[in-house]
Amino acid sequence: MTVALDLTADPVDLTAALVDVPSVSGEEAALADAVQHALREQAPALELTRSGNTVLARTNLGRPTRVVLAGHLDTVPLDGNLPHHRTGSGDSELLHGRGTVDMKGGVAVMLHLAAAAGGAEGRLRGEEYVGGLQHDLTFVFYDCEEVEYSRNGLGRIERDLPDWLLGDLAVVCEPSNGVVEAGCQGTIRVELRSTGKRAHTARAWMGSNAIHAMGDAMRRLAEYQPRTVDIDGCTYREGLQAVRVAGGVAGNVVPDECVLTVNHRFAPDRGPDLAEAHLREVFAGYDLTVVDVSAGALPGLTTPAAKELVDASGGRPVAKLGWTDVARFAALGMPAVNFGPGDPTLSHTREEHVPVEQIRRCAEVLRRFLG
Amino acid sequence: MTVALDLTADPVDLTAALVDVPSVSGEEAALADAVQHALREQAPALELTRSGNTVLARTNLGRPTRVVLAGHLDTVPLDGNLPHHRTGSGDSELLHGRGTVDMKGGVAVMLHLAAAAGGAEGRLRGEEYVGGLQHDLTFVFYDCEEVEYSRNGLGRIERDLPDWLLGDLAVVCEPSNGVVEAGCQGTIRVELRSTGKRAHTARAWMGSNAIHAMGDAMRRLAEYQPRTVDIDGCTYREGLQAVRVAGGVAGNVVPDECVLTVNHRFAPDRGPDLAEAHLREVFAGYDLTVVDVSAGALPGLTTPAAKELVDASGGRPVAKLGWTDVARFAALGMPAVNFGPGDPTLSHTREEHVPVEQIRRCAEVLRRFLG
Repeated sequence: MTVALDLTADPVDLTAALVDVPSVSGEEAALADAVQHALREQAPALELTRSGNTVLARTNLGRPTRVVLAGHLDTVPLDGNLPHHRTGSGDSELLHGRGTVDMKGGVAVMLHLAAAAGGAEGRLRGEEYVGGLQHDLTFVFYDCEEVEYSRNGLGRIERDLPDWLLGDLAVVCEPSNGVVEAGCQGTIRVELRSTGKRAHTARAWMGSNAIHAMGDAMRRLAEYQPRTVDIDGCTYREGLQAVRVAGGVAGNVVPDECVLTVNHRFAPDRGPDLAEAHLREVFAGYDLTVVDVSAGALPGLTTPAAKELVDASGGRPVAKLGWTDVARFAALGMPAVNFGPGDPTLSHTREEHVPVEQIRRCAEVLRRFLG
Repeated sequence: MTVALDLTADPVDLTAALVDVPSVSGEEAALADAVQHALREQAPALELTRSGNTVLARTNLGRPTRVVLAGHLDTVPLDGNLPHHRTGSGDSELLHGRGTVDMKGGVAVMLHLAAAAGGAEGRLRGEEYVGGLQHDLTFVFYDCEEVEYSRNGLGRIERDLPDWLLGDLAVVCEPSNGVVEAGCQGTIRVELRSTGKRAHTARAWMGSNAIHAMGDAMRRLAEYQPRTVDIDGCTYREGLQAVRVAGGVAGNVVPDECVLTVNHRFAPDRGPDLAEAHLREVFAGYDLTVVDVSAGALPGLTTPAAKELVDASGGRPVAKLGWTDVARFAALGMPAVNFGPGDPTLSHTREEHVPVEQIRRCAEVLRRFLG
């Protein structure tokens, strides 16, 4: 039986209702059904479609510009943190539970806006909205963001329904503490490999120690000075970090191989090729293999729609540090930002919780921006 | 049914017969039975006892000195290298198969000597021997040398039948290319641990990288100058080698722990305590835990019995580099040497093979020394 969601409810209550429908990656069907059903019932003016457990909805008002709002329905596995509960009261009330931060608060804001844009009444909580919309809107509620890249629902939509992702600005409603986070850094992971020659440790001079040979790479890491790059008023701090090291054959054998995995986060003024070339320079002399790489995204805050959102949010935009699906939109040539309720450092923790005030404020900022 | 061994046969043929009775560690019963049966039948003058799959035999002639000869019956697992086969001919004939080197050649030599010492005839292959013995002899054929220290049959004998190990010189017939290898180096393994603080690699400055922190220890390893120590004409080359390194949490996490395992081989002029103190000095600043340690053994070549054996072998003694059960005898206060046929670097290989000439020469050297 499909869970009934009231999209016209207070977005905090809607968040709580979404949180209480478990939707661990791969098991989003019940929540996707509920979202699809509620949009069909409460926002009949929207064009609606579905792909797997991804639900898509859009207006077709003929506006000159279109804003795409995207959020994922899935969460990381539960950790004894459902159903939701609330603590505190008034402006300091907190909503606790898996997904409150990452990212059912953002999804609730999106559903709230969708109901307003597609509702038969054209009204939401007393405010004029439909007809006053400045941009056409596309809503993307997608699946499997918290698992490997190849399963990500947004990737499937990009392949199967590409026109549903296009627009003049993308707003990914991932938690950002209600601040506009612009663009994102790229990330590249490489494996450095040193080789040697096995020997019994009692006759070590007959061998060559691959772990010792990795020492110089670790010295270069320790001495590395990461760049700080300013773009459109956003500051990107780069990083170069060993994330794994492994080597060794047995307790009495000089090892013949050592592998050091390094993760480089690079500012979006560099593409993947330049980032790789930089690492090949830093680690000259080592065998280097690229394990994975994702381009960053320029903040794109010079476009009119992005400027309007920053103005509506009333704050200075900041650089997004982690890699997010914002980069997918950037790769499509669109300016893209993160904007959503919740502290991203609480994502995936057992103690995940969101200040309810942030949910309400994000909804207001987006209504002001769009209306 | 017990396999019949002819202890009065040519020691090469006896080696071949021993090789063809598989005796992987823990499965030595058939070979121990055969050894016990043959000694009882063909060396009735010996006092015989058994403990598990260890067989012990000794003369009680009232000589002023006693030499203990020890060899293990077990081998590492088979690798398609049984039964034995022979290649070449004459002095360049080779005997191939699991255990030919480690160490059924040495066991055959010991059985050959035992039959001579305990045979009713008092003769072996035409040479006078019994009655002419200069030393009383103890033979220890033991089990489980190739597995963990705690299962080693020699350790059990030391606890249960300690007087069977005592004497004025111990000769462990492990492969040594027919050269007297004297004493052995000690070995100590330590774990160095660096700690840090986890953080997302996109916000690396909020953490502290434990792998980077291990770089300095690796530099010290690369720069380390091992000692070379001369004792009793034997040269001991020390070593300090990383044998394992492990660290890492996930591909996007600054790791908070890295463990580097280091193996130090130290000359027998130092005991375990001094070796540990040395490592604590080398790796000052790191958390250091001793994983295991075995004392080395001084060569002890200044004692008369050891000198006689070196003279009989006609060669300069050399330092034993790896740790062997020689150190157990040294810990009992006895001079102890390795002396046996076969190239130790072929031990445990699929291609294990021994020049038959070495087997015969080791038997001759020991007959000359003992007779």
